Amino acid sequence: MKTLLLKKEEVGRLICMKEVIGTVEEAYRAFSSDQVEQPDYIGIDLPSPRGEIDFKLGYYKANEVISMKASSGGFINNPTAHGVPSGMASIFLFDARSGALICVMDGSLILGLRTGASGAVSVMALARKNARKITSIGTGNQARMQIRAIHEIMKIEEIHAWDNSPETLSKYKADIESEFGIPVIMAASKKEAVEQADILITTTRGKGSLVETDWVKPGTHIVAIGTDQQGKQELDPGIFRNAKVVVDSIAQCTEKGETWHPLNENIITRDDIHGEIGEILLGKKPGRENDDEVTIFDSTGMAIQDNTTAGKIYRNAIERNVGTFFEFF
Amino acid sequence: MKTLLLKKEEVGRLICMKEVIGTVEEAYRAFSSDQVEQPDYIGIDLPSPRGEIDFKLGYYKANEVISMKASSGGFINNPTAHGVPSGMASIFLFDARSGALICVMDGSLILGLRTGASGAVSVMALARKNARKITSIGTGNQARMQIRAIHEIMKIEEIHAWDNSPETLSKYKADIESEFGIPVIMAASKKEAVEQADILITTTRGKGSLVETDWVKPGTHIVAIGTDQQGKQELDPGIFRNAKVVVDSIAQCTEKGETWHPLNENIITRDDIHGEIGEILLGKKPGRENDDEVTIFDSTGMAIQDNTTAGKIYRNAIERNVGTFFEFF
Repeated sequence: MKTLLLKKEEVGRLICMKEVIGTVEEAYRAFSSDQVEQPDYIGIDLPSPRGEIDFKLGYYKANEVISMKASSGGFINNPTAHGVPSGMASIFLFDARSGALICVMDGSLILGLRTGASGAVSVMALARKNARKITSIGTGNQARMQIRAIHEIMKIEEIHAWDNSPETLSKYKADIESEFGIPVIMAASKKEAVEQADILITTTRGKGSLVETDWVKPGTHIVAIGTDQQGKQELDPGIFRNAKVVVDSIAQCTEKGETWHPLNENIITRDDIHGEIGEILLGKKPGRENDDEVTIFDSTGMAIQDNTTAGKIYRNAIERNVGTFFEFF
Repeated sequence: MKTLLLKKEEVGRLICMKEVIGTVEEAYRAFSSDQVEQPDYIGIDLPSPRGEIDFKLGYYKANEVISMKASSGGFINNPTAHGVPSGMASIFLFDARSGALICVMDGSLILGLRTGASGAVSVMALARKNARKITSIGTGNQARMQIRAIHEIMKIEEIHAWDNSPETLSKYKADIESEFGIPVIMAASKKEAVEQADILITTTRGKGSLVETDWVKPGTHIVAIGTDQQGKQELDPGIFRNAKVVVDSIAQCTEKGETWHPLNENIITRDDIHGEIGEILLGKKPGRENDDEVTIFDSTGMAIQDNTTAGKIYRNAIERNVGTFFEFF
């Protein structure tokens, strides 16, 4: 029995953002078609200055692939003490027809890629067709990934960006302008930035720097990325009151996504959630219905996104003869 | 960052049963000293004729090793359809100081070895010092493993064996006599076999062929291996009434071990459980106190046994320069 080993550099060569947009779309459709099993994740929390290591399991029935992603994060002393990044990830793929371990790949690129792609998928389903201006609250790595992905599926005319760190913001402007040639306007305030948005992306990891309700103009599509755990928040819950709320997973978002906050404050009820993005992609529910509604996509991230993306990387590797086979027995 | 890859054949060369007895003892002590975290396992059940694939996570604080064992079982068509065994296992080791993936090893030998060793550890703690005769109810692979392990720690004079399959029983007799030179008496009935026992081992995987209370003579030590899931049972619950009941994990055994049955029938209460074997090994609780008591060791199997055993294999591999290093990034 042969197991394919894929290094980070090979993983990077084996998939492009356009393909990841496709695999994430596939993941959402599968999730809303009863093609997915995702048990609760398990993990170990380590004492500070270490972080946590989590294990996320997903089964994609149509493809008969089971994926287990092991990802660590928050080991802040790693670079100096161990010469490795503060977070690492590995993905293990099993053939669900036999239970065999078919692939071990570095997983450090996949989280960024598939999270970036999730925003782009929501833009296709929910943003106005004439949307051109993006506002980015937060300008770190994931903010760049969002642009990288959305750039694949629409023309971005300008980006209004805000960050609480001016250095991070300047660096983002320089990087985005040189990589994509899209002009970046560094906003003087969050309010100024948000008021410009056709599409508003929040990637601050939810440190409590909220976008206020009044700032959001009609017709805005909001991509809420940063809140994937209890305790994080990026949007004033009032924004949800009259918005079309779409989530990746109702179970996850009502428990630990941005959507938890308006539910907790009784601003909306569970019935006010329009649906899961997979339902819209499958045509079971409408997407945007007019140019005035505010749409929110709450993304908490799902194991099935890792599964479909890693599965595609694996198939590409086999096709292109990339990687190293190892016989464990 | 380098990850060590170990094949089944290398794993087999890197550890002997004597060492596994040591690593299992270490696991039990660690478990009863607050040195262990073992989240509930997660898994995927596949439709027949496939089985299940389970993921068991363990963290051993003293060694700073996190282990994840992926094990599949019950894929009955595997040998003919896919040319692989019906069950397979892989173990992934992470350095808990950094979160790095340090080792991927074939795990198919470890379950058998560490389960065999668990019986031997219980014999050291709980059997009479003058015990010489073993009775084996069930004569499959794990029955052999039990003998292989107990043979390392005491002199076995004879084995009385019973199985509901006469062919399996004859094969066991031939194998054990040739491997260890210990005479095996094929019992005409379970009763006849059990009545001979100083140490009674049950490894039938609990198909409901019960050992009855009256057959067990005073002073017997019972190693109950086969029941690790709801629905399995090997012992008449009455045996527990006046026995010293020792478990690997109170949480697991009261939920899905042999001990569940007498609890469920109100034959014993939770307070009647003498303790965990780790507590005896640590000297926190007495082991056997006289030659007349019946002792029961209920083994359901714990992730920490895989952890300490795989950790030892990894350290042996590094020391002896065995295995293949792979740089995932």
